[in-house]
Amino acid sequence: MDEDDVSVLVASLLRGDRRALARLITLVENRPRLRDRIMSLIYPYTGNAYVIGITGSPGSGKSTLVDKLTGELRTRGKTVGIIAIDPTSPFTGGAILGDRIRMLSKSTDEGVFIRSMSTRGSLGGLSRAAYDAIALLDAFGKDFVIVETVGTGQAEVDIVDAAYTSIVVVTPDMGDEIQAIKAGILEIADIFVVNKADLENVEATVMALQMMLDLSDKGDWRPPIIKTVATKGVGIKELLDAIERHRAYICETDRIEKMHYKRSKVRILEIVRSKLMDKLIRELENSGELDRIVKCVVEKKMDPYSAADEILRKLDKK
Amino acid sequence: MDEDDVSVLVASLLRGDRRALARLITLVENRPRLRDRIMSLIYPYTGNAYVIGITGSPGSGKSTLVDKLTGELRTRGKTVGIIAIDPTSPFTGGAILGDRIRMLSKSTDEGVFIRSMSTRGSLGGLSRAAYDAIALLDAFGKDFVIVETVGTGQAEVDIVDAAYTSIVVVTPDMGDEIQAIKAGILEIADIFVVNKADLENVEATVMALQMMLDLSDKGDWRPPIIKTVATKGVGIKELLDAIERHRAYICETDRIEKMHYKRSKVRILEIVRSKLMDKLIRELENSGELDRIVKCVVEKKMDPYSAADEILRKLDKK
Repeated sequence: MDEDDVSVLVASLLRGDRRALARLITLVENRPRLRDRIMSLIYPYTGNAYVIGITGSPGSGKSTLVDKLTGELRTRGKTVGIIAIDPTSPFTGGAILGDRIRMLSKSTDEGVFIRSMSTRGSLGGLSRAAYDAIALLDAFGKDFVIVETVGTGQAEVDIVDAAYTSIVVVTPDMGDEIQAIKAGILEIADIFVVNKADLENVEATVMALQMMLDLSDKGDWRPPIIKTVATKGVGIKELLDAIERHRAYICETDRIEKMHYKRSKVRILEIVRSKLMDKLIRELENSGELDRIVKCVVEKKMDPYSAADEILRKLDKK
Repeated sequence: MDEDDVSVLVASLLRGDRRALARLITLVENRPRLRDRIMSLIYPYTGNAYVIGITGSPGSGKSTLVDKLTGELRTRGKTVGIIAIDPTSPFTGGAILGDRIRMLSKSTDEGVFIRSMSTRGSLGGLSRAAYDAIALLDAFGKDFVIVETVGTGQAEVDIVDAAYTSIVVVTPDMGDEIQAIKAGILEIADIFVVNKADLENVEATVMALQMMLDLSDKGDWRPPIIKTVATKGVGIKELLDAIERHRAYICETDRIEKMHYKRSKVRILEIVRSKLMDKLIRELENSGELDRIVKCVVEKKMDPYSAADEILRKLDKK
């Protein structure tokens, strides 16, 4: 696989070849040098897909919700790409299993492309790979890209940054946990979904969310709260209508430009960070400098912060 | 609060003042400049605590296990520091609630200090703050520091790197999820705990783990599998005995030196990364350079990888 093969693959992707798409996502995940070339080739064709982020606790029914939402989008004639982020590996198989089940139910539909990605690997690696996969699905021509994450960490919050409309899923059986939904989640959510709305305590959950929204200042857009029973398809149309309303809202204002700007900035800086540290570590290791300083810290001649400062001072001099 | 106050606080910490300890943990979490000074003052007093990492799915009973293990350590005359990492914030309150419950049961015991930390904040921020808290508990004189994390992401895997003995907790009711316990978890675990061993399928779970261990190559140390019923205190003595056996094993060999080296290296590089990027972003923003490049990317005159390369080329020239 060299740069010429990559150009051929990208051409196939642009013609709508699903296997080329799958192949390219794998390449951007695993082959840093080819990735740079791929992203530079496809970048001019991106910017048309509408990206939706869906996040929530394990067991909140996110995957089923994504399934049903995809069905509704297909009914409206839209094509869909789904990226399921699996942050639970290697400890639980929730996302992996959920994804497999979905694969079965949607894999025969040419208008839907599903990919699951793991959060394993280096810090920051997840968001970069996910952003790249969004760009590939976008260039492939998907009208909507849905990014599904379990809301359990910073990586997931970063992914939500990639979305134009972010949906937070809660359930009535969260009980006291709803107490823990604090400022952070309000900043993230453009739409709240109370899924499993056939359980008891639905109204209490909705009221708790309303109260939080009353106390917060979200500006012009007050996140609607949509009740769904994803397993039965209840509330899915209402959810998609809410998404379309939010889309209209951000496109009317200058918010979408601000989002593009912020996304681009975050991506560039993340790539800089990763490349810079790779290079720096290689240099420090080759010169034996890192080994010397680490040994000082191990022998307690120096603390880790002073050691870092010494490395930074040396960099400054160069 | 200035550097002199910090010296007074550190002196109090070294005399065994719990309030000074709590105060200093808060300072290292929130005040970067004071943090450097604090870590440099306490570093010579660290290296005596034995760090145990415990990780597992939400609901596996980790918190109760940590509680009972702490009780057993106290019976054997050891002092204990506990750091409960809460990666579920802001979406679920599991760890927060668990911690509150524990606070009640242990807060009257002067030999135990509990602190919960959230994973919110910048990438990499968690592990740095947790490492700093471990160092403070160590300097304070705790014989054991237990770091409890929900096993759901890279941050948690990083924390496990900080431990000399890492325990992975599974339960018989994980069902198909145990399938997802793959190579990654085997690399992490020094000891497996099958908690809730009064449920059905215990032996099937133990056998599944045994088979995985048979297929893997862990070198000299084969992780023992300890059955516990944490709520009833069953198996806790056996668990602590297994920890002591693992401790003896790593201290006999040169593994502990290798661990110290790896830990120090990871820490130093993380601090370098964070300080370097802070400085770089500040410079790029002040010069207007970042704004210019981000705009090029927004207008699709350039893709993010090429933009990053341009920034890196400029850095090289300087």
